[in-house]
Amino acid sequence: MSHKKYAIGVDMGGTYTKFGLVDDQGTITRAQQIRTDSYRSPEDFVAALSLHLQSIVDYHDQDHTITGIGIGAPNANYHTGTIDRAANLPWRTYIPLRDMVASAMNIKTVITNDAKAAALGEMQFGVAKGMKDFIVVTLGTGIGSGIVSNGQLIYGHDGMAGEVGHIIAKPNGRPCGCGRKGCLETYASATGILNTAQKIMLANNLVPFENSQAITDAAMMGNPMALEIFNQTGKVLGKVLAHVHTVISPEAIIFFGGLANARDYLLVPTQKAFEEELLFVYKERKPQFLISALQHRNAAILGAAALVF
Amino acid sequence: MSHKKYAIGVDMGGTYTKFGLVDDQGTITRAQQIRTDSYRSPEDFVAALSLHLQSIVDYHDQDHTITGIGIGAPNANYHTGTIDRAANLPWRTYIPLRDMVASAMNIKTVITNDAKAAALGEMQFGVAKGMKDFIVVTLGTGIGSGIVSNGQLIYGHDGMAGEVGHIIAKPNGRPCGCGRKGCLETYASATGILNTAQKIMLANNLVPFENSQAITDAAMMGNPMALEIFNQTGKVLGKVLAHVHTVISPEAIIFFGGLANARDYLLVPTQKAFEEELLFVYKERKPQFLISALQHRNAAILGAAALVF
Repeated sequence: MSHKKYAIGVDMGGTYTKFGLVDDQGTITRAQQIRTDSYRSPEDFVAALSLHLQSIVDYHDQDHTITGIGIGAPNANYHTGTIDRAANLPWRTYIPLRDMVASAMNIKTVITNDAKAAALGEMQFGVAKGMKDFIVVTLGTGIGSGIVSNGQLIYGHDGMAGEVGHIIAKPNGRPCGCGRKGCLETYASATGILNTAQKIMLANNLVPFENSQAITDAAMMGNPMALEIFNQTGKVLGKVLAHVHTVISPEAIIFFGGLANARDYLLVPTQKAFEEELLFVYKERKPQFLISALQHRNAAILGAAALVF
Repeated sequence: MSHKKYAIGVDMGGTYTKFGLVDDQGTITRAQQIRTDSYRSPEDFVAALSLHLQSIVDYHDQDHTITGIGIGAPNANYHTGTIDRAANLPWRTYIPLRDMVASAMNIKTVITNDAKAAALGEMQFGVAKGMKDFIVVTLGTGIGSGIVSNGQLIYGHDGMAGEVGHIIAKPNGRPCGCGRKGCLETYASATGILNTAQKIMLANNLVPFENSQAITDAAMMGNPMALEIFNQTGKVLGKVLAHVHTVISPEAIIFFGGLANARDYLLVPTQKAFEEELLFVYKERKPQFLISALQHRNAAILGAAALVF
C-alpha cells in the first residue's frame, strides 16, 4: 500500500475547465476537460463539473483518500472562496465557487487565482522546489503574479496581493482595461507586446505580427524588428520588477505563460534593465531569472492541486 | 509567581544605544543608554554594552528567566546576524553583532533593522495588534519599512526586503545617496521634505525652514507654504505607496518616525494621492492610514524585544 497523497486539481478558464487527479509527486492521471462556456449559469457549470469530479473520486482506489479539491480560476479569492465579476468568464456575476463545489462534492475545497496557483505549483513540483522567497510572474493576456515569502503565499488582507500587472510602468502611458494609464500589462503582456510590435512595424511600413508567438518566431530567425520589440518590452518589465524586488527581495523571478516562451529574447533585456534599476544592496545576491518548469505540463492543474497539499 | 515573559530590547543608533528589560505586555523597566560613538571599535562597544546588559540580567528576579536579547540596528540583517557598512554607525565595517553579543552574554540574541523591529513592535504592542497584513513606513532621515504578511515579517531571501525608500518615485529625479536618481526618500523623508521646502521657500523669497519639525509647526499655524510642501510630499509618497500596496495588499499603512509627527498635514494628501493611484479592486477594502502608537514610547526598544517574543 502506497503512502502517496492525492488531490484533485481544477484549472478553470474562460473557454475550458481542465481537471485531473494529482499525486504529491506531481503526476496527473485521469485528466479531462469540459467547456466552461457551454453552461448557461455557474450552477449548471458546477453541476456538470461535479459529475466529472465524482467519477474521478469513484474510480479512485479507496485506500487512497483524496485530501481535497484545489481550483485555480480567474479573479478567485482564497479568503472568501468566491469569484467576483471575472472579465474572462462567461458569467459576470459573484460566484461562491468554493462552497458550491464543496457542498456538491462533500470534499474540502480551496480556490485561488491562476497566478497564485502557479506559484504553489512551482514550489511543489517546479523550479522553485526548496525556495522560500520567489515570485512567479504570469505573462499572458494580462500579467499576474504569485508571491511566496518565507515559504508562504502572500495573499494580502483581502486576497488580492500581487497584481503587479497594474503597477504603473509609465505615467500617462497606454490606457489600461482597469481605467488607469500606463499599467505594466499594457506593455509587457502578450497583448501589450503585440501593441508595441504593431507600432514599430507600422512606423517601418512592415506587415504587423499576428500574435506574440509570431514575434518570438521572428526573433528566432534573427529578425531585427522582433529583437527590438523584445528589447523595448524587457526595458519596461525589468524596471517594474526592480521595484517589486525592492519590496519582497525574492531569490528567483520565475516567468510563466505564453510570452515566457520567448525565453532569452525577453529575459535578457528584462534582466539587463532590472539590474540597471536595482538598488546596490541587492547586487551581491541578485535573484535568478528562470522560466517555469511547468510551462507545458498542465501547470494550472498541478498548481491547483498544490493548494491542497 | 507571575507568568510574564521577559526580553531585553536594544535600540542601537549612530549616537546612542538604548536598552531595557521588556515584558510581554510592553512595559519597559531599567531603561538605560550608552553613547555608541564613544567606542573606538565594535569590540569595545560590545564589551561595554554587555556589562550593562549583564547588570540587567543579574538584577532581574531569578524566577523569571529572560527569553532573549533583541537588537534593532541600522542595516542589520536578521538572516546573517550582521551589520554591513552602516552609513549611520561610527564604524563602517562588517560587524557580526548577533554572535558577538550572544557569546558575551550567553543568551539567545536576534537582530534586525530598525524598520522591521518597528513593525514587530507595532504588531505586539501598538496599533497593529491583531493584524496579519500591514506595513510600517518609517519616515526619518531616510525611509524604511517593515512589512508583515500573514502575521510574519517579510525578510526576503537576503534579509533585505522592504527598502521602499529606494523605489524610484520620479525617473531622473533628485540624486539619492544610493547612487541612483528619484528615490522616494529624496522626496518624502525628513531630509527630502526639507529639500522640497527650501526650493519652494527660495522661489518665493522666503526664509527656509530649519528642519522638518519647523514645517509641521508652520502648518499648524496655517502657513500656506507649509501646507503646499506637505501636499507636494504627500503626492509623491501616496503614489509610491499605491504601488507597494499592489504587491502586498495590507490592511493598514502605519507611519512612524519624525515626519509622522506631521500627522494629517502629511497623511491627508498622501491618502488622497494613494487612492487616486489605487487599482479599483482595492477600493472596496482600502487600507487604513495610521500613525504608530509607539511613536513616543521607546518604540525601538519595544520592537527589538518583540523580535524575541
